[in-house]
Amino acid sequence: MEYKILDKINRSEDVADLNMDQLPQLCDEVRQFLIEKVSKTGGHLSANLGTVEAITAMHYYFPTPLNQFVFDVGHQCYTHKIYTGRKKGFDKLRKNDGLSGFPSPNESIHDAFISGHGSTSISVAIGIATAKKIKGEPGKVIAMVGDGAFTGGMVYEGLNNVTKDLDNLIVILNDNKMSISKNVGSMSTYLSKLRTSDDYIAAKKNVTSVLDKMPILGKPISTAITSSKSVLRRSLYKSTLFEDLGFIYQQVNDGNDIFQVCNALKFAKNAEGPVFIHMMTVKGKGFTPAEKNPGAFHGVGSFNADSVSDPDVAPSDSFSTVFGRNLSDMANTNKKLCAITAAMKYGTGLQFFYKEHKKRFFDVGMAEEHAVTFASALAKNNLKPVVCVYSTFMQRAMDSFIHDTALLNLNVLFAIDRAGLVPGDGETHQGIHDLSIFENYDYVPIVCPSNYDELKYWQEYLINSVNGPKVIRYPRGAQDSYIKDYVCTGNFYDLIGDSKDCVIICYGRQFVEALKAKELLREGGIDVSVLKLNVINPISSEIIDILLNYKYVFSFEEHVKNGSVSAKIGLELLEASFGGIYKFKCVDNYTVYHASVPELQKKCKLDADSIVDKIKENYEN
Amino acid sequence: MEYKILDKINRSEDVADLNMDQLPQLCDEVRQFLIEKVSKTGGHLSANLGTVEAITAMHYYFPTPLNQFVFDVGHQCYTHKIYTGRKKGFDKLRKNDGLSGFPSPNESIHDAFISGHGSTSISVAIGIATAKKIKGEPGKVIAMVGDGAFTGGMVYEGLNNVTKDLDNLIVILNDNKMSISKNVGSMSTYLSKLRTSDDYIAAKKNVTSVLDKMPILGKPISTAITSSKSVLRRSLYKSTLFEDLGFIYQQVNDGNDIFQVCNALKFAKNAEGPVFIHMMTVKGKGFTPAEKNPGAFHGVGSFNADSVSDPDVAPSDSFSTVFGRNLSDMANTNKKLCAITAAMKYGTGLQFFYKEHKKRFFDVGMAEEHAVTFASALAKNNLKPVVCVYSTFMQRAMDSFIHDTALLNLNVLFAIDRAGLVPGDGETHQGIHDLSIFENYDYVPIVCPSNYDELKYWQEYLINSVNGPKVIRYPRGAQDSYIKDYVCTGNFYDLIGDSKDCVIICYGRQFVEALKAKELLREGGIDVSVLKLNVINPISSEIIDILLNYKYVFSFEEHVKNGSVSAKIGLELLEASFGGIYKFKCVDNYTVYHASVPELQKKCKLDADSIVDKIKENYEN
Repeated sequence: MEYKILDKINRSEDVADLNMDQLPQLCDEVRQFLIEKVSKTGGHLSANLGTVEAITAMHYYFPTPLNQFVFDVGHQCYTHKIYTGRKKGFDKLRKNDGLSGFPSPNESIHDAFISGHGSTSISVAIGIATAKKIKGEPGKVIAMVGDGAFTGGMVYEGLNNVTKDLDNLIVILNDNKMSISKNVGSMSTYLSKLRTSDDYIAAKKNVTSVLDKMPILGKPISTAITSSKSVLRRSLYKSTLFEDLGFIYQQVNDGNDIFQVCNALKFAKNAEGPVFIHMMTVKGKGFTPAEKNPGAFHGVGSFNADSVSDPDVAPSDSFSTVFGRNLSDMANTNKKLCAITAAMKYGTGLQFFYKEHKKRFFDVGMAEEHAVTFASALAKNNLKPVVCVYSTFMQRAMDSFIHDTALLNLNVLFAIDRAGLVPGDGETHQGIHDLSIFENYDYVPIVCPSNYDELKYWQEYLINSVNGPKVIRYPRGAQDSYIKDYVCTGNFYDLIGDSKDCVIICYGRQFVEALKAKELLREGGIDVSVLKLNVINPISSEIIDILLNYKYVFSFEEHVKNGSVSAKIGLELLEASFGGIYKFKCVDNYTVYHASVPELQKKCKLDADSIVDKIKENYEN
Repeated sequence: MEYKILDKINRSEDVADLNMDQLPQLCDEVRQFLIEKVSKTGGHLSANLGTVEAITAMHYYFPTPLNQFVFDVGHQCYTHKIYTGRKKGFDKLRKNDGLSGFPSPNESIHDAFISGHGSTSISVAIGIATAKKIKGEPGKVIAMVGDGAFTGGMVYEGLNNVTKDLDNLIVILNDNKMSISKNVGSMSTYLSKLRTSDDYIAAKKNVTSVLDKMPILGKPISTAITSSKSVLRRSLYKSTLFEDLGFIYQQVNDGNDIFQVCNALKFAKNAEGPVFIHMMTVKGKGFTPAEKNPGAFHGVGSFNADSVSDPDVAPSDSFSTVFGRNLSDMANTNKKLCAITAAMKYGTGLQFFYKEHKKRFFDVGMAEEHAVTFASALAKNNLKPVVCVYSTFMQRAMDSFIHDTALLNLNVLFAIDRAGLVPGDGETHQGIHDLSIFENYDYVPIVCPSNYDELKYWQEYLINSVNGPKVIRYPRGAQDSYIKDYVCTGNFYDLIGDSKDCVIICYGRQFVEALKAKELLREGGIDVSVLKLNVINPISSEIIDILLNYKYVFSFEEHVKNGSVSAKIGLELLEASFGGIYKFKCVDNYTVYHASVPELQKKCKLDADSIVDKIKENYEN
């Protein structure tokens, strides 16, 4: 497709060089570009359609990299990437060796910082703005943060550390009335109140002037007015939280009107203190199916932009939905079950539980620490909470787990979704660190099902039969067809094959690769057994006894080495004076960039072919 | 000492049974009791003197355990312990097998939850209150939280999840205008504004009634009033953040006046929604030296209550002060150095840096996540930030480290204070988990000095010679006199002794015990070498090569096994087909209760005697 203005935009300054009256068309073209590209590659659509005008105005007044932009969560930065020389990259958006779907300083000097997890942008922006102050450097720092991220505590830690001398700091609250799905919490109500008083600023001005002119009306009214005038004035001048916290507050009622946005940013350019711009935008703006159902177009695969199917159809099965449906079913009879999510109701498959058991369902916002501590308190009072959280976000609640769950040995089930390698999102979203903490507690059983049958069995086992903290981990997406018929044995481990010589240890999704490797090796004349761990913590002495019989023990897993099952088993073998060969492979790529799962497995040398290579390499020596 | 009323108080209900006019004397007696006891045992004094009236009124209206109290951070709960049958325990406060200095459900059914880390109480209280609602149980839940904890993000995650149906929830903001030392941030300014409007509530009422009666004054004033009346009314009715977030707001101007406190709690007892009580108290109330300098009496050792020495004298040397002084000195010439603390300016020895380099010093409040992300952004912009944080609190910022520091390989020095076993505070404060994340990155050097000489050498080495994330870990307190003269070699490791047969691996403070064990063993006719690791990450192949020469390798360390140096070395030995005996001891007590360091070392079997035992046990077989 050809774009009259956009085709000439190759640098941030190219936007700044336009006439303001060209900006509406530029925005239209960017929107068309986004729909054209994302419909082919998949990606985050709704959020990016909503922020076209804001980012356009940002580049118009504050070209990068002299100015620096920090995007909270980060996946709303596509327009910024378009304006900073990366249009061509959109053909391989989120693909192996292609453009990242998030800001990435390794990709461009125009990306001021990395982001993928929520609520970090204000802290980052304060850091950059402070560094500029210390070094005497020019340029503004703009943090763009969605109202969803306003449920995360880091936002307040950041706001609390904004000082008046940071006149190079602008915070844009991109308020689209929802984060990924519908927003939650009293802060959301507060923001909505600010929004609904459309003429808020105007009214404030009027009232203030009225106050100045107000006649003294004689006792007792005059007394009241006199004693109250300062209180009144304060509550009028400083009536938003953001003003109370030291910001100059601006409101943009239509953040998809480029001229309104430009006005606010022009004002901010000359402000003598940190500026907070509260900007209302429409998520999915300009693409009717996305406007109607922005949640469905939050992160999408490729689609036909001309005939979009109904997004309300039942989601296809995945570990998440199977877990979520089963949990809802269990809650019909188990009245103690509660479900907690940190802003991922759909992502974790909890929409079923929500529909059936609203009073025991809690979406706490992007607040993983609160989620875990809150769940621990429910458990302390004899309920059975289940925290459904992505592995990568669980990193944020590790202290809550240690301090509030583990020390009191409380009955909380952690359903760790997106465990292991995660496709598309890249280095900020890999589920490869959670065992580093969970594995420390021998009294915390950790199970890793390989297919839905096992998922349901162990889910029920943990909820019905285990008191205390417990963990179930499963990957993003669907079970692998290669093992979908593998029948759950209910054993803590399964030993497959007759080799007494060589064994491959695996668990969860890695079972597929191990089985495939076993088959490939058999074809090559090498017989190996597969030890499939269903419970990866604790490791029983029975398992160690079995392994001691082998000459060759290999282990492969989708986790960093630190805290890995491979490390734990290795140590036990060493202490038991194992005399054979032990080799293992964990994820030791420090930065696992975006790609598909098979590509990631290959990069991390965890795919069947790499397993075969590793075994042959050691076996033949 | 004899106490007329207090001596008869053995249960919570005993307080409730008193006449209200007896309460002032009870409070006086509690205060005398606290000074008498804490002056002998040491403990947290100032915070407890400030909360006597609040806790007394809580028990008066809401006896436990029917009602449940959640104390944020927890160390202000002494009065609560006194009222719930634990007076005798104060003779062994914070001592081995004695009373915990923090709430502990394992100690008493009256302690609703554990706490030690800040900002968790609202999340916990919401959990308990929600559980009561789900189960239809009576009783109120009171969270008592200090203004210091209001700088931690979890407080907002909690506030954001308070719903109007939680009429069994009371939050008391214990506002003593400082947390451990002086409070920071714009939230502190906001609270101070609320405080200074003494007649705030009264004024509100007056203005509201004025508004109701206000005559229409003819255009243009009438138009302004009409269009603005709803805005005005809203900003008057809902003018505190806490009201905006859905609470019924009460203010207690003197929280050390038992009758004022009782009034507020009586009101809260019958309120039809969650209540927020903003209560001003004086930290150290009733003990002049503590009132004058509450920071100095925050956590104290034993002292003479009748003749208290000047708390302004220079603190005695410790790893923290040596590090802090040296950092301040380095910053004289290194203009890029910045220092960041999360509300522990004195605890981490940063008061020296603060005095000399105010513009590059940042106390961000109890906000570890912000601290690390902010520091990472400073580093991204070419400054050299040093984050000084206790190991146990670093647990809260592990995602920030992974996501914001490590992925971008940013130049941040983590000075991990209170690493290893920590005396007195107990299970919530042990520094035994941080390596579980840090150790994962081979490109993140981690050093562990054993004495001040080494501390300074490695501090300078890391700051001057290493780019990227780096960690220096040291224990609470002073260097051990046993090794204070050990001269820093600057080597990554030191090998001490001539034994070619048996070696003990150790690092940091554990070097003392290893040397002592070596000496004890020598006396018993067993010759061992000591491998002292100065850099514990990465482990060089040189070290593994050395170890492979020994028949017996032992390792002892103050960290949990997961992520430990012992585990890492063990794995390398296994992969290198080590044929000898490898035995290690980490902290595998899941709950390390309060005691002195020597007692803790003994309990964890890390003291010299235990090392000797372990070696003999294996050596002789």
